[in-house]
Amino acid sequence: MAQKKRTEIAELGQFGLIDRLTGKCSYRDTTTFVGVGDDAAVIEPPQGETMLCTTDTFFEGVDFDLTYFPLKHLGYKVVTAGISDILAMNALPSQITVSLGISSKLPVEALDDLYEGIAFACSEQEVELIGGDTRASMTGLVISVTALGHAKKDAIVRRSGAGQNDLICITGNLGAAYMGLQLLERERRVLSEVENPQPKFEGYEYLLEKYLKPRPRTDIVVTLGEENIRPTSMIDLTDGLASDLMQLCKSSSCGVRIYLERIPLARQTTELAEEMHIDPVVAALNGGEDYELLFTVPLAMQEQIMRLGLVDVIGHIVPESKGCYLVTPDGGEIRLKAQGFETSL
Amino acid sequence: MAQKKRTEIAELGQFGLIDRLTGKCSYRDTTTFVGVGDDAAVIEPPQGETMLCTTDTFFEGVDFDLTYFPLKHLGYKVVTAGISDILAMNALPSQITVSLGISSKLPVEALDDLYEGIAFACSEQEVELIGGDTRASMTGLVISVTALGHAKKDAIVRRSGAGQNDLICITGNLGAAYMGLQLLERERRVLSEVENPQPKFEGYEYLLEKYLKPRPRTDIVVTLGEENIRPTSMIDLTDGLASDLMQLCKSSSCGVRIYLERIPLARQTTELAEEMHIDPVVAALNGGEDYELLFTVPLAMQEQIMRLGLVDVIGHIVPESKGCYLVTPDGGEIRLKAQGFETSL
Repeated sequence: MAQKKRTEIAELGQFGLIDRLTGKCSYRDTTTFVGVGDDAAVIEPPQGETMLCTTDTFFEGVDFDLTYFPLKHLGYKVVTAGISDILAMNALPSQITVSLGISSKLPVEALDDLYEGIAFACSEQEVELIGGDTRASMTGLVISVTALGHAKKDAIVRRSGAGQNDLICITGNLGAAYMGLQLLERERRVLSEVENPQPKFEGYEYLLEKYLKPRPRTDIVVTLGEENIRPTSMIDLTDGLASDLMQLCKSSSCGVRIYLERIPLARQTTELAEEMHIDPVVAALNGGEDYELLFTVPLAMQEQIMRLGLVDVIGHIVPESKGCYLVTPDGGEIRLKAQGFETSL
Repeated sequence: MAQKKRTEIAELGQFGLIDRLTGKCSYRDTTTFVGVGDDAAVIEPPQGETMLCTTDTFFEGVDFDLTYFPLKHLGYKVVTAGISDILAMNALPSQITVSLGISSKLPVEALDDLYEGIAFACSEQEVELIGGDTRASMTGLVISVTALGHAKKDAIVRRSGAGQNDLICITGNLGAAYMGLQLLERERRVLSEVENPQPKFEGYEYLLEKYLKPRPRTDIVVTLGEENIRPTSMIDLTDGLASDLMQLCKSSSCGVRIYLERIPLARQTTELAEEMHIDPVVAALNGGEDYELLFTVPLAMQEQIMRLGLVDVIGHIVPESKGCYLVTPDGGEIRLKAQGFETSL
């Protein structure tokens, strides 16, 4: 069997490595004036538009496990995570920077894989890589992503704008990424002592894709713009529905009622949850990493928003004094908590 | 002796911790539309101006050693490092985001110290903290800083604009931060087995300050603007004069001659270098972390630039074919190398 080529990072040096990696990213955005290769990147936002900026950092052993996370997928996922925060402001992303901390035990070919995923996501999402540095890390891989975007000031949607009786809209379905992670962890445990492990993923490919290679919901922001729908508030779902919804309610000084049977779950999510004795609603409420969007619209827009066929309405905004609760089919109310939830009635 | 209070990070939770830390930073910039607390920050650059963006990540054990680096100084220094890259484009910084990876062994009070340094630098430099997240890190402290700034497009100075016979100008003096680090490392080695270590720093306070708490050269960019001097190229000195100057020459497709006796060295730098048997010019060429600015101006501006009293002219640009050399007082030429240098004649 042919051995895979292994190039040590030291052979290229820091600048050679940066050139090799950033060279893979070929998408160029019209708003970039200076990209990779200077002290700072320079962006010219369209006349009269504001710039958006957000940073996320991902740590090996905390945010991802390289024993089962293919580096190419990881590259794609960190781009999704970065630009998802721009989308959550109802703006479109245009640039990213990627800063790496790498241990010398990783060969250059591993970083090639990582950047192929980054480059693929950048081309697909039309986002330009405008900067990046690589530093030695004493320990695991660390990836810091800064995402930039631009939008007209009056198009920007904050967490704080939800109003009384507004509808809670959710894109896609929830809990799938969490179940994908549970599946990967289970197979790793089961196969940790096996010489040629053959993990069993049949029937759950969708869950793996949602965890390993989640797509950012750029389509939603584009559609909302085309339909002239401006949500009153918005957040992206990264920490789990309960935590993110409570963040939005805190910012908007309101409470919420969501209905258990309306929470969108994929068939694979409920099937694997059943197999693993996990409540799929708990996966949706607390799992996180869905990278779907949650937003609110006035009640009067119910018909217009449903016609899009892109969202589920799972509840509505109530006064702050009424708190944040999940309503069960029998009318019981369960108080939402940032992690886990408890029965109040 | 009163015990210092120790609060565990878990007591506050992620959101409580972020609120506590970012709450220390009170400077607000007029160009910030949405700051801390939403999915992304939103900036309104002044009409017709471009935005600048740069990211740097700092790793414990690689970029700093917490056994002798006070966290308050570290907070100040990472802000300097971030905004120095904006200054190096001849632009003024206006915002930063700070993303932390923290091990649970650090108490909240340690992070308070770090953010007091960040807050102090932000107030002093008039830079607003507009975002930040904290994540668990399995290992040491990791700090990722994204700096933003804005400038008119025609004011921006790149690395690539140096022309034939342009003068090489340097702010401040070089090698002091490197010697400060050598002093700290020496005292740590000497005192590693001593119970109540009393490190000897008398007479070298300036070197420690240059290493632990370097000031960004905002004053230079402001002065250049006031004097209507637009450098032809610019870079900040972070990797050592040799490496940074060669980066600039590569971008500008030119060579360079710099003169050994013109390299600005502080008295304390030469004194400690002598004491430790280090060549102070090597410290200046390869030491790095000076956070001074290197820029080029046309030969015709020599008088105007010297009159400022803020820079030393250490050499000039030559054709690319003539290479990059350091000229010794006896007329010998030593080829510059990114790390170390070798005699060619």
